[in-house]
Amino acid sequence: MINIIGLNGIPMVKSGDDLGLFIVSAAEEQGVGIMDGDIIVVTQKVVSKAEGRLVKLKEIEPSEFARKISEGTERDPRHTEAILRESSRIIKMRGQVLIAETRHSFVCANAGVDRSNIDNGYLCLLPIDPDKSARDIRYKVKELTSRNVVVIITDTWGRPWRLGQVDFAIGVSGMTPFRDYRGMTDPFDYELGVTNIAVADELASAAELAKGKLSGIPVVIIRGYEFGKGEGSAKEMIRPLEDDLFR
Amino acid sequence: MINIIGLNGIPMVKSGDDLGLFIVSAAEEQGVGIMDGDIIVVTQKVVSKAEGRLVKLKEIEPSEFARKISEGTERDPRHTEAILRESSRIIKMRGQVLIAETRHSFVCANAGVDRSNIDNGYLCLLPIDPDKSARDIRYKVKELTSRNVVVIITDTWGRPWRLGQVDFAIGVSGMTPFRDYRGMTDPFDYELGVTNIAVADELASAAELAKGKLSGIPVVIIRGYEFGKGEGSAKEMIRPLEDDLFR
Repeated sequence: MINIIGLNGIPMVKSGDDLGLFIVSAAEEQGVGIMDGDIIVVTQKVVSKAEGRLVKLKEIEPSEFARKISEGTERDPRHTEAILRESSRIIKMRGQVLIAETRHSFVCANAGVDRSNIDNGYLCLLPIDPDKSARDIRYKVKELTSRNVVVIITDTWGRPWRLGQVDFAIGVSGMTPFRDYRGMTDPFDYELGVTNIAVADELASAAELAKGKLSGIPVVIIRGYEFGKGEGSAKEMIRPLEDDLFR
Repeated sequence: MINIIGLNGIPMVKSGDDLGLFIVSAAEEQGVGIMDGDIIVVTQKVVSKAEGRLVKLKEIEPSEFARKISEGTERDPRHTEAILRESSRIIKMRGQVLIAETRHSFVCANAGVDRSNIDNGYLCLLPIDPDKSARDIRYKVKELTSRNVVVIITDTWGRPWRLGQVDFAIGVSGMTPFRDYRGMTDPFDYELGVTNIAVADELASAAELAKGKLSGIPVVIIRGYEFGKGEGSAKEMIRPLEDDLFR
C-alpha cells in the first residue's frame, strides 16, 4: 500500500526560508515524521519563493515585441516580457496562449511564469535549477533526520489534446525518474519495446491529489512506493529535440 | 491521507468475464473490501479482454496504405491496418511512430492498439465506449456490495516533449473528472483564471504506481480521495478541436 500524506503545517514561505526545516518540523508536528524511502513532493511555488524567484511587475520594462503580442489579450505586457525572458523558444502562440520552452528545455504554458499564490504586483519564475532545489532539500532533510528521502519539485501543466492540468516533475533528487520495462517480457512472453514509465511525473500527479491550490498544502509525503535507486534528474524526462514531433 | 491499494488476486481475464465480480472477490480476499467512496482504477487491457476487443492478426488484410507505411518499420502491416481502422485522424507520422486520434477522439500513439499482455497472434483494441465500461463495473460493484464507488478505466500514454509514459483516464463513471478552481481566489486574493485540475488523470497516474506492467495487478483501489460528485465522463477531458494548437 502506498500512502499520500499532505503536510498541513507549512507556514507561508518567504525568500531565504529553509524549506527542509519547514518540512521536517511539519512532518513531526503532524505525527507522521520522516522515514527512509519517503518521497517528499514539493510545489514549485514555495521553492521559487524560498529561492527569491519573484520579480516586481513594475520593475519590468516590456519590449516592443512583448507589447505587440499582448495587444488584445488580458495579459499585462510586463508579464509577457517576463515570460519571454524565461523562454528559449516559442512553440505556439494563439491569443493569450503562449506555449514556450523554458531555459531548462521544459515545454509548458507561459514558460512557468505565473501570478497565483504570491503577493500582488509580483510574478513567480521557475527555480533556476529545480534538480538542485530538490537536492538541497534532500540533503537538509538528511542532515536534520538522518533519513534518506527522495525529493520531487512539481509544477502544474496543461497538455495538448486534453483539457485541464496535472502536476509533473520539474526537479528530482534521489531516484531514477523512470521505471523502465524495455526489453522485459510480459507473462505471454512478448517483449515490451517502448514501455518506460515516467514514475516521477506520476508521483507528482499523485501528490497533487492531496494538495489543492487554495488549502495551503504545498508539500506532500508519498510513503511506501518502491522507486529505482539513483541520483536522478528531471532533465532525463525532457524529450530530445530530434525525437520530438511537436516542437 | 489517501491510500493506493493494488489488488493482487485478479485472475487472467478472458472474453465474457465479469470484472466487477473479480474486483469485489479480490478486494474481499485481500481483506480490504470495498468501501463507499472508493475509486476503482482498472487497466484498459483487462476491460478490452473482458469485452472481447481482441483481433487475430492473421484475420486482418492490410490495405495498400498500411503496407506502404509499414515498410522499413518493425511493425507488421496487419498491425498498422488495425491501427488505421481504429483511427479517425492521423496527427503525426514519422518512422514507426504513429500518433492518431481514436474513434473516441482521444489522441494517442497507435490509436491505443497494442500487443502486450495478450495471447500471441492477437492485437488488443480500446473498449468501444470506456465510460460505459466504467459504468458497467460501477453498477456491478454496487449490486454486489451496495457500495457507491467511482470507476476509472486507464491507458498508458506518451506525451509530446516529455519522455516516458504515464497512465491517463479513458473512461470515468461516478465523479467529475476535474477539480475546477476557475473563478476562485487564492489566499492573496488573486483570481485563478485557468486552473482546472484533471484529477481523473492524476488518479490514473497515482494508481499506475501500484500496478506495474508485469506483476499482474490490473486493478487498484484509491481510498480517501474526496472527489466531486457527478456521473462524469472521460470525454469531458478531450480538448475541443477549435481550442487545440497541436491537432
